[in-house]
Amino acid sequence: MDFKEERIDSEDIYQGKIVNLRIDQVKLPNGRVSTREVVEHSGGVSILALTEKKEILLVEQYRTPVEETLLELPAGKLEPGENPLDCARRELIEETGFKAARIKHLYSFYTTPGFSDELLYLYLASELEEVGTDFDEDEIIKNHLISPGEIMDSILSGRIKDAKTIVGLLTYLRGDFNV
Amino acid sequence: MDFKEERIDSEDIYQGKIVNLRIDQVKLPNGRVSTREVVEHSGGVSILALTEKKEILLVEQYRTPVEETLLELPAGKLEPGENPLDCARRELIEETGFKAARIKHLYSFYTTPGFSDELLYLYLASELEEVGTDFDEDEIIKNHLISPGEIMDSILSGRIKDAKTIVGLLTYLRGDFNV
Repeated sequence: MDFKEERIDSEDIYQGKIVNLRIDQVKLPNGRVSTREVVEHSGGVSILALTEKKEILLVEQYRTPVEETLLELPAGKLEPGENPLDCARRELIEETGFKAARIKHLYSFYTTPGFSDELLYLYLASELEEVGTDFDEDEIIKNHLISPGEIMDSILSGRIKDAKTIVGLLTYLRGDFNV
Repeated sequence: MDFKEERIDSEDIYQGKIVNLRIDQVKLPNGRVSTREVVEHSGGVSILALTEKKEILLVEQYRTPVEETLLELPAGKLEPGENPLDCARRELIEETGFKAARIKHLYSFYTTPGFSDELLYLYLASELEEVGTDFDEDEIIKNHLISPGEIMDSILSGRIKDAKTIVGLLTYLRGDFNV
């Protein structure tokens, strides 16, 4: 079965700081032509950072698009040319003030492939040492901790409602990771 | 701690079929002014549809933004004024050809609140009956089944890499749902 769409035209609509928007005209395998709106994003990282007590660090921050303060895993966008592991170490310190002696890549996933190419690299970090925060001046962030036993209720009750955070926390519950 | 950002200006950049793009100027609690790029989306549904053998229906489709064919939970966008439950029933039939006698809302989550307001309603559907597909003419989709025992390996190996699908499948593994 042939699924592939052939891009026959593409128009750049906007080049932003976080995202770009382009509109593609694509030819489907059945010959039809359709329009696809594509939000380009450079990708990023999300970090499951475990304390000695096996609690997980969360950050609380206001999210303009949803007009809510959300609890999320520490995360951030790849800088141009930055490798994901360096990005994970940098964002963990910037957002939480903790440096991880151990950090490893678990897997990567697309946040919303229907309209965006954003790929997130999920990391597991442990052996944390507090080194002090170095917040991005446009971010106001507060640390929280969640224990494994609180995760499922927090998701089902809507206390946690960010996809990358749900992905990371449920992966941690399910996984059998050497940390 | 005050997190809330005050929107002081907003510019509409693009009105699309699936997404709109607007640029907000916001005032942070610390007094600084910053720019936020916001991808507006009407929200959607994602469906965990269980067969009698407790396998889960997945759909395979090409995703232009990531230039890949992905395995995903059946999902779709809310039509104007449509309630999420009706949307879940409609999308399940459109994408898989199966009608569910039982369907219930589990919880809802934001796919990517850093730059978009997209909210997805996750449903659990069971007692499926094949009624035939009624594909959207711009979608080419093939059904697959995954058993609970295959889920974790499929995620860790990258065979499944769509966030809403990982969220749904790991929730099913963890949850103790009456179906």
